[in-house]
Amino acid sequence: MADSEKPIGVFDSGIGGLTVLKTLIARFPNESFVYLGDTARLPYGSKSPKTIERYLLQNIEFLLNQNVKAAVVACNSASTVLLSNPSLAFPVPVYNVIEPGAATAVRESEAKRIGVLGTKATVGAKSYVQAIHRLDREAVVFQQACPLLVPLVEEGWEDDPITNLVVYRYIQPIIQAKVDTLILGCTHYPALRLAFEKVAGPHIRLVDSSLAISDLIDADFASGRLARGSKPAPLRLMTTDVSQSFFDVAARLMNPVEIPQLEAVDIGTPKP
Amino acid sequence: MADSEKPIGVFDSGIGGLTVLKTLIARFPNESFVYLGDTARLPYGSKSPKTIERYLLQNIEFLLNQNVKAAVVACNSASTVLLSNPSLAFPVPVYNVIEPGAATAVRESEAKRIGVLGTKATVGAKSYVQAIHRLDREAVVFQQACPLLVPLVEEGWEDDPITNLVVYRYIQPIIQAKVDTLILGCTHYPALRLAFEKVAGPHIRLVDSSLAISDLIDADFASGRLARGSKPAPLRLMTTDVSQSFFDVAARLMNPVEIPQLEAVDIGTPKP
Repeated sequence: MADSEKPIGVFDSGIGGLTVLKTLIARFPNESFVYLGDTARLPYGSKSPKTIERYLLQNIEFLLNQNVKAAVVACNSASTVLLSNPSLAFPVPVYNVIEPGAATAVRESEAKRIGVLGTKATVGAKSYVQAIHRLDREAVVFQQACPLLVPLVEEGWEDDPITNLVVYRYIQPIIQAKVDTLILGCTHYPALRLAFEKVAGPHIRLVDSSLAISDLIDADFASGRLARGSKPAPLRLMTTDVSQSFFDVAARLMNPVEIPQLEAVDIGTPKP
Repeated sequence: MADSEKPIGVFDSGIGGLTVLKTLIARFPNESFVYLGDTARLPYGSKSPKTIERYLLQNIEFLLNQNVKAAVVACNSASTVLLSNPSLAFPVPVYNVIEPGAATAVRESEAKRIGVLGTKATVGAKSYVQAIHRLDREAVVFQQACPLLVPLVEEGWEDDPITNLVVYRYIQPIIQAKVDTLILGCTHYPALRLAFEKVAGPHIRLVDSSLAISDLIDADFASGRLARGSKPAPLRLMTTDVSQSFFDVAARLMNPVEIPQLEAVDIGTPKP
């Protein structure tokens, strides 16, 4: 297979990364994609860097075996671990979501006061803070871990007064600190865009990493670092655990894109 | 080591099972305990029976290698899988939390109208419903999956108006169905006892599986099926992932019992 026609691999700890996949499919309609959700071991966000690194390496290896021409680490927690291990090297471009999200925020923030919402792992590692400060040492960054937001999305309560209350509780202190830009630093959060807009008000810019990473890939197509595809193969969605509830959330996140059945794959199981 | 002095192993998908361990330690002060929390792969409640079964077997094998005289599957989701595979056999008594919880509910409910709160896995498998109907075919059972309650406890929002609202949303339909007994079918839920009492009112009995399983173990001591210990060894807490946030939640759940450092153990990683 010509390099250009190889698929781009997207992986996440679960199905939240489908928000990134959906953006990529819309932006690059001639590309083929394979998606890997590590649903048997999700979530990553509450786990330690060492455990997340082990999962990250196994998952990238799995995607390389699927013959991908590039891999997108859609999971912020796994991207954080990738960024904090600069010695990790791979035979194809591997994209993290942190750096493009940070770059977009620095570009869009006028006051250079930026809020970062993420999982405990992402916030604890300060990966957005460091990526922002590499671009602008003067920027002021406020972080907030939001562990309840992923379960609220998975429960299907995106448009719900309880969700608005939880969002309010999490972001009120950062809003009072007069940030003008909020990074939605977790793949599930774009599903809560309406709640963020309601609570944060119309003057706060919301940075969605899935848009930011599309720009980066577009630039790599333009520069020739990545070969453009010409004809998309059918989408494949693979997960390490398959259940009806994963499928239901997946269908909701990808709507109106129709999704195939989830294929169960095995990663990280000891051979007997 | 004499059989009597061997520890009792308790395992859960995470640290929620510490609510069971705490009850067991208080009830059986002469016994030694080892606790295994599969924190690298938690939660189980949203995963498929097949994946949960694989984790269950690996974890029981790990406890057997720790030379336990009995194993308590504190996790309701894993107990559900254990119960639905009656062909699984082990060289020591292995306790599930479902049957003792169901037995307590049938005994305590006067109206024989029982509500069951649990994870998606527990509710989907109808394990409490079946266990209740084995004891009383006429009992009427209402189930509700409550995926947000575990994250609320892990966030530390046990005593919080948002948590009361979420609890209200989940249990209001069952309360209106005139149950008089509610099974707290997940190890985290006893931490929300106050919220349940507020929302359900004073006339609803709350069944805590950790108390129910203590009764069962006590009966096995009395009958000689389990040998009583005489001198407790220091408690060991082992988890497949170690992080500060796990330790913090663990310390809160076990309070006022002081806990040792978490020991990291490896389960389910392929050998290179």
